[in-house]
Amino acid sequence: MCENDIKYMQEAILEAKKAGPEVYPNPKVGAIIVYKDSIVSRGHTQRYGGDHAEVDAIKRLDKKYKGCTLYVTLEPCSHIGKTDPCTTIIDNITFKNIVIANKDINPKASNGSKLLSKKGIKVSHGVCSEDARKINRRFFTFFEKKRPYVILKIASTLNGNIAEEDGLSKWITNKDSRNSNYKMRSNCDAIMVGTKTILEDNPTLTSHGFGRDPKIVIIDMGKKLSKKENVFNHNPIVFSEDILGENPLNNVEIILNMLYKESIQSLYIEGGGETISHFIDSNLFDELQIYYAPKLIGKGRTLYKGFKGINDNINLKVNRIEKFGDDIKITYHR
Amino acid sequence: MCENDIKYMQEAILEAKKAGPEVYPNPKVGAIIVYKDSIVSRGHTQRYGGDHAEVDAIKRLDKKYKGCTLYVTLEPCSHIGKTDPCTTIIDNITFKNIVIANKDINPKASNGSKLLSKKGIKVSHGVCSEDARKINRRFFTFFEKKRPYVILKIASTLNGNIAEEDGLSKWITNKDSRNSNYKMRSNCDAIMVGTKTILEDNPTLTSHGFGRDPKIVIIDMGKKLSKKENVFNHNPIVFSEDILGENPLNNVEIILNMLYKESIQSLYIEGGGETISHFIDSNLFDELQIYYAPKLIGKGRTLYKGFKGINDNINLKVNRIEKFGDDIKITYHR
Repeated sequence: MCENDIKYMQEAILEAKKAGPEVYPNPKVGAIIVYKDSIVSRGHTQRYGGDHAEVDAIKRLDKKYKGCTLYVTLEPCSHIGKTDPCTTIIDNITFKNIVIANKDINPKASNGSKLLSKKGIKVSHGVCSEDARKINRRFFTFFEKKRPYVILKIASTLNGNIAEEDGLSKWITNKDSRNSNYKMRSNCDAIMVGTKTILEDNPTLTSHGFGRDPKIVIIDMGKKLSKKENVFNHNPIVFSEDILGENPLNNVEIILNMLYKESIQSLYIEGGGETISHFIDSNLFDELQIYYAPKLIGKGRTLYKGFKGINDNINLKVNRIEKFGDDIKITYHR
Repeated sequence: MCENDIKYMQEAILEAKKAGPEVYPNPKVGAIIVYKDSIVSRGHTQRYGGDHAEVDAIKRLDKKYKGCTLYVTLEPCSHIGKTDPCTTIIDNITFKNIVIANKDINPKASNGSKLLSKKGIKVSHGVCSEDARKINRRFFTFFEKKRPYVILKIASTLNGNIAEEDGLSKWITNKDSRNSNYKMRSNCDAIMVGTKTILEDNPTLTSHGFGRDPKIVIIDMGKKLSKKENVFNHNPIVFSEDILGENPLNNVEIILNMLYKESIQSLYIEGGGETISHFIDSNLFDELQIYYAPKLIGKGRTLYKGFKGINDNINLKVNRIEKFGDDIKITYHR
């Protein structure tokens, strides 16, 4: 791997970051075409059904260039999906070399490298792969771990309470925080809450018009829900004792396994404290988004009642800090 | 108040901000001298015992200027302390006008305006007074409320616990957070903790070499301390049932009243949860500094067990957010 490879792959990563959530369920990919140490074209994944990054870059390329190097953050796909395979569009006259950050782990799309090598193009892998992975955390988690990317969302007082003792929790956070939460919902495939949250808050769990609505997933242990609750207007996936067992940590695995089969790439869990705690204790989560409102509840319900202690490293890295009025949102990645 | 007054007073405020903690117990003051719509000199409070802001600016002023306007963030002092009164140095040939942001509320130093007016200098007040007050929150709180400026400091898990159930709290936060805490100690007149914290943690409560050590103040209800604890190496002020009563909120007032008499301008309270809670419930605090470490304790001691609830506005405004590794520190002002 030479210095130039790193330089151009970082450009391709910047290109990938231009892709928005509209590419979903495809990953965000960036491509750079280099001829004699100059960038001669760029591209990134277009809206789902549109061009992939390589195709986008190739379409913009002046036909006069021969023997270029293509830098792409994800292995070119080899399958006919919404578009033709990228591998058929990459020819061995225009391209002499292809440098790839990460292999495509979607089994349907992989094997592109092999096909390109057969055409006589020199293919290298692994340049800036860690940086390129970060752009598609949900995609990689889904295909590698065979479960949705799990985001835990908590709205808390400064002392870790998510509600009064009697369940009252409207509203801990302010309107701007809640709007940012609605946007986040629109940005996830599915949203989940536990039984108690539905019984006490009767939420709609929609994006409140901020974007598309996520698929609703609910837990109904003891079949306590009447099916007249708001969530039932949206044909939710319901997990009850028909599928789940006694052990909450096993249940987490069952739920995630089922949702993987439903092609849910990202799951946003909004509570309550028990559901959040089970996911934390099972270690099956990827991101924690916590809103701290400038409030205190002396006698309330804690956001966490699991078995972790002071010496447990739960491996949370601060990814982002946002301020909504006097609410603070901290996003942790693992 | 004209537009220029605001412009120049904002410059004086910037000047005041150049003063460091070494001016203590004096307030941080800035001064600007203007001649024919040009700034011709600037000054700010020097180390305690050194020049006040006006004197600093006047010493730098070219003697050729006559009929200037002096902008100063705090009323020039009229008393002989470590230095001569500022009012004697301000003459009515060099200065035609003086514009002041805030009156000096230190009874020993006030009345400067009157003396200056008598000299025939036109004195105006109240320009940008709110902005100028913010630089000297401790000073104004001390003289106006006749109690120390109270800073509550909490080191918490994400779910609001400050220790395990058995009291274990070493270490929730990381080394960089703890160092920032030691610096904060060096920047306060006094530090206070409750009995339980001393019994369980036996802290030294020093600045650990980061600056001067604060005066140690401890609560010893029930006279449970043996006087062999580390804090007794530093001649602490001890509050016990000899002075305090049954009602913790009254005790807060008694403590603050006594510390005011001891000229403690700022009090840094490091816990534990009970002491913090009493100060919150008494409403006698000015700043809350909370460190969130990326940890969770399922069964632990909460940072707050008072009587506030979800609908109580405790009037906390985010002033600053800092990141120490994966610890987050939020500073709230009231």
